[in-house]
Amino acid sequence: MAGTDRTQSLLTGDEAPAIILVAPQLGENIGMAARAMLNCGLTDLRIVRPRDGWPSESATAASAGAAVVIDNVRVFATTSEAIADLTLVYAATARDRAMTKRVVTPGEAAREVRAAGQGNGGAHKCGILFGGEAKGLHNDDVALADHVITAPLNPAFSSLNLAQAVLIVAWEWMIAGSTAPASEMRIPDDTRPATKDEMLGLFEHLEGALDDSGFFHVREKRPIMVRNLRNLLQRAQPTEQEVRTLRGVIASFAYHLKKK
Amino acid sequence: MAGTDRTQSLLTGDEAPAIILVAPQLGENIGMAARAMLNCGLTDLRIVRPRDGWPSESATAASAGAAVVIDNVRVFATTSEAIADLTLVYAATARDRAMTKRVVTPGEAAREVRAAGQGNGGAHKCGILFGGEAKGLHNDDVALADHVITAPLNPAFSSLNLAQAVLIVAWEWMIAGSTAPASEMRIPDDTRPATKDEMLGLFEHLEGALDDSGFFHVREKRPIMVRNLRNLLQRAQPTEQEVRTLRGVIASFAYHLKKK
Repeated sequence: MAGTDRTQSLLTGDEAPAIILVAPQLGENIGMAARAMLNCGLTDLRIVRPRDGWPSESATAASAGAAVVIDNVRVFATTSEAIADLTLVYAATARDRAMTKRVVTPGEAAREVRAAGQGNGGAHKCGILFGGEAKGLHNDDVALADHVITAPLNPAFSSLNLAQAVLIVAWEWMIAGSTAPASEMRIPDDTRPATKDEMLGLFEHLEGALDDSGFFHVREKRPIMVRNLRNLLQRAQPTEQEVRTLRGVIASFAYHLKKK
Repeated sequence: MAGTDRTQSLLTGDEAPAIILVAPQLGENIGMAARAMLNCGLTDLRIVRPRDGWPSESATAASAGAAVVIDNVRVFATTSEAIADLTLVYAATARDRAMTKRVVTPGEAAREVRAAGQGNGGAHKCGILFGGEAKGLHNDDVALADHVITAPLNPAFSSLNLAQAVLIVAWEWMIAGSTAPASEMRIPDDTRPATKDEMLGLFEHLEGALDDSGFFHVREKRPIMVRNLRNLLQRAQPTEQEVRTLRGVIASFAYHLKKK
């Protein structure tokens, strides 16, 4: 998707969780994870034992300009060191570990991380652990975490690409704090929704032209057909400009009608 | 994430939306999109004018085994043909198109698609359009759609990778139908949550050992310290097995205590 506006500031705050990749293999996946993080307003990326070293040219290329994430990556030798400053840590894993562990969905984790930065019991600094491409997290890493995050995916095909796993968790964090309306009618700046008076003018214009054209030749059906057409046009929620366009369409038909 | 169980059946049903990629460029992104779709139980992938042709070796490789998606891809020359059998179509785009169009979040779209397959006004077959990597959807493609989907991302870095965009929409569709609990305590099969009687046995064992060790030497503080320890241990929600482990730990300390 296009649409980046670099004049707008980042949304990251102190309450944003760190993403910790443990023993990732491909720089490309690290870069894609960084891009997904920044898409969702996260910037604190930590890497434990990257197989191919750090910095990584392939990570930078795949990050598609997420330099604020890539340039500030911190590399650690152990998971313990990578999470030392955190107070609430989740381990993302799809596998059942035969451990006694609280398991939450990505959405629930996001709400908890949002809440953990606030109020009584707040002031948490949170992080989310992801394992490498081949084997995921080691059980010892899972045991370092407070809770497990598991995404309820297709059980017949639940293996997520590393960057895709990071995206799901980051996305849920993003929307848990989003104030965007679930649904809105978007209208160009140079117009506005039509008033009911304008809609009534449209209805009467159309119905008059249809009277002239003989469309309502079964007179007893006229009321129901009028209601149906009015309902249809109102469902479209036209702008003032569109009402004028529709009246132009009607006038165009009516002009030829009168010439006949 | 690991954890694929190929013995379990797919979750896709007739109500699952089609994913339509319009003029995608990289086979790798098509393959990653197919993988993300199958992760979320979607299988109907349609491609309009793939730049590098079809089939695509790089798409197959990147799909990581999502053959049920890749092998059933249908290729079309135009967007109109690709959506001909659908009744409700969304266009995924981050850019404002200066069109009068209803815009919904991926989550709202998912709920609508789920609802559109059911009840009065149901029997819809839905699809979601995604544009190519470089330019996204053409305005004429957006005008073919009923509604627009826009993900409320970081406004300073909102450009999603194509497969990541597909994942967000597919993921929201998946969780809109998920019955997975937001949070659950997962326990190994060979044990169960401790009963309150077992917890009380643990408390009294610990408190007796601490009496012996002199931990409660300030007698008036004993009640509050007992309450604190009981609260702490209950917050851990131990299993019956863990209660036995903890009693072994206490016994181990107490044994050395008595030898002193």
